[in-house]
Amino acid sequence: MIHVTAKIGENVSIGENVIIEENVVIGDHVDIGNHTVIKKDTRIGNHVKIGDLTVLGKPTSSNKKMARKLEINLDSLVIEEDVIIGCNSVIYRHVKLEKGVFVGDLTSIREKVTVGEDSVVGRNVIVENNTIIGKRVTIQTGSYITADMEIEDEVFIGPCCSTSNDKYMGMGNFKHQGPIIRRGAKIGNNATLLPAVIIGENAIVGAGSVITKDIPANTTVVGNPGKIIKKQ
Amino acid sequence: MIHVTAKIGENVSIGENVIIEENVVIGDHVDIGNHTVIKKDTRIGNHVKIGDLTVLGKPTSSNKKMARKLEINLDSLVIEEDVIIGCNSVIYRHVKLEKGVFVGDLTSIREKVTVGEDSVVGRNVIVENNTIIGKRVTIQTGSYITADMEIEDEVFIGPCCSTSNDKYMGMGNFKHQGPIIRRGAKIGNNATLLPAVIIGENAIVGAGSVITKDIPANTTVVGNPGKIIKKQ
Amino acid sequence: MIHVTAKIGENVSIGENVIIEENVVIGDHVDIGNHTVIKKDTRIGNHVKIGDLTVLGKPTSSNKKMARKLEINLDSLVIEEDVIIGCNSVIYRHVKLEKGVFVGDLTSIREKVTVGEDSVVGRNVIVENNTIIGKRVTIQTGSYITADMEIEDEVFIGPCCSTSNDKYMGMGNFKHQGPIIRRGAKIGNNATLLPAVIIGENAIVGAGSVITKDIPANTTVVGNPGKIIKKQ
Repeated sequence: MIHVTAKIGENVSIGENVIIEENVVIGDHVDIGNHTVIKKDTRIGNHVKIGDLTVLGKPTSSNKKMARKLEINLDSLVIEEDVIIGCNSVIYRHVKLEKGVFVGDLTSIREKVTVGEDSVVGRNVIVENNTIIGKRVTIQTGSYITADMEIEDEVFIGPCCSTSNDKYMGMGNFKHQGPIIRRGAKIGNNATLLPAVIIGENAIVGAGSVITKDIPANTTVVGNPGKIIKKQ
Repeated sequence: MIHVTAKIGENVSIGENVIIEENVVIGDHVDIGNHTVIKKDTRIGNHVKIGDLTVLGKPTSSNKKMARKLEINLDSLVIEEDVIIGCNSVIYRHVKLEKGVFVGDLTSIREKVTVGEDSVVGRNVIVENNTIIGKRVTIQTGSYITADMEIEDEVFIGPCCSTSNDKYMGMGNFKHQGPIIRRGAKIGNNATLLPAVIIGENAIVGAGSVITKDIPANTTVVGNPGKIIKKQ
Repeated sequence: MIHVTAKIGENVSIGENVIIEENVVIGDHVDIGNHTVIKKDTRIGNHVKIGDLTVLGKPTSSNKKMARKLEINLDSLVIEEDVIIGCNSVIYRHVKLEKGVFVGDLTSIREKVTVGEDSVVGRNVIVENNTIIGKRVTIQTGSYITADMEIEDEVFIGPCCSTSNDKYMGMGNFKHQGPIIRRGAKIGNNATLLPAVIIGENAIVGAGSVITKDIPANTTVVGNPGKIIKKQ
């Protein structure tokens, strides 16, 4: 079903059983896979490719146990030109995927997130709300990007990394703050970053490390808890 | 396709291409997303919301390498009132989601599992069979809940935690036992719990810790292997 | 939609809204779930069972930040007899699933991968390209199998294990090499394997360990970094 208010550009290929809701705008030369659901107000630029069985523009929801309030005035999902999105992924409203971004299969990105130009969000990566991801960033398969986090340009995050933003683990209404990863830093696979840690510019975090405090720029840190083993 | 034996309540909103199999019972004021598959015998209470592209009531399966036997007499999937389920999730037969439970996107819950009232099972959480999850529990994004595990009320499990239940790693038919997490305990992100460990009431396990033995109530444990650093 | 060039065997059960593209060949006694997409050239043997909402035979894609080149001459996806595939999974072209393989829900396997006879690829496991998985291997839920990796026969990989193949974390065009896991080795849950490490025959890696160098056959290793605690 394509809603009558949707605007579809030229040379758009639409798979079978695709649902395009009201006020969706789709540019030219866009490919949309089968059984994909594009929710209302989503904007898709030229030359975008979207896989099968994907949901774009999902609104938020919550139950009474959850800290998050229901967001009712979210902006649209905006997908700029040349973006590629995989299969079986779920991207919320109020997300901006800048030009050339790649999003893998089985991936989900919540509301109030920007992913900068040419960045890669790998398969099965899950991104929480209210997080900024810079340009030319790589987030490899299966990593978890918490809420209230900042990832600067050219950061590399290996597979299966884990982050968190709540020092008190659900005990109250304290301010949540995710890690801040400065430009060019590299995080090894399955590393654990605690809430609010700052990883300095070009720092290297070894695979499997547990980072409990800030890491200066240009240092290499490994272990549990992470210790500096090298200054560049 | 809605099977002729299915019973649908009042004010039910059903998306496109939804499949509702035989003997399904759906209450009033239920929302069902697009391309969702509701398998036979599933029972859905009032005011439930289900996302797009989700499978409810999947039967089990296995190949000859797998220890599990094919279960052929499983009960129905029961979803009580006010439950919310995300998109692209897969929930098996013989699961009970009590009143007010929230299940995220890209999540899967196997057979013989109960999730207690108002608990949260985050995005991309995978729950194995034969496990009990209490009331007002939070299981954050990407955590893995093994089989034969017990999680008491008000437990908090941070993102990307991992559990296991087979001390001999597939070597034979020993009894499997997952961790037991007592009331109010909190587990930090990417922590690892070994088979059969007991995490005491209100204990705190630090992020990235590896828990190889029982943790007394009201203690804080960190490191690999986990050591007690604080008694409350 | 079933393409006119597809060949479908006898006693094949096809769910609703299934898409079968050109040159697909399906054997006898095959079950295909609802809303599943079978892309062109895929070959499916007798007695195969495929879940709902799954994509089979996906071609590769990439953006300009990614090292991988677009593969344009990939072979077909080949699924041999008695294979079982779950729901909401994504399997690429040029994958071979040998006889009796089990693939769980929410799983993805990239191109140039072989999974040997009777092996199990659990729910939410993600496998990268160019990797060989032997016969009677178990890969439990949520583990990540990187590219350029070799897993010999009868290996057991517990849940949530993480591997990597790029020592320089995206810094250049160095040769990538994933871990090599020799016959009968066992890896505990949430273990981390660094690039190119060799895990010897029948070696045991403890849960939560971080493996930074080769492990001799018949030894048990635990900790971060992993140390030998036992020779069998």
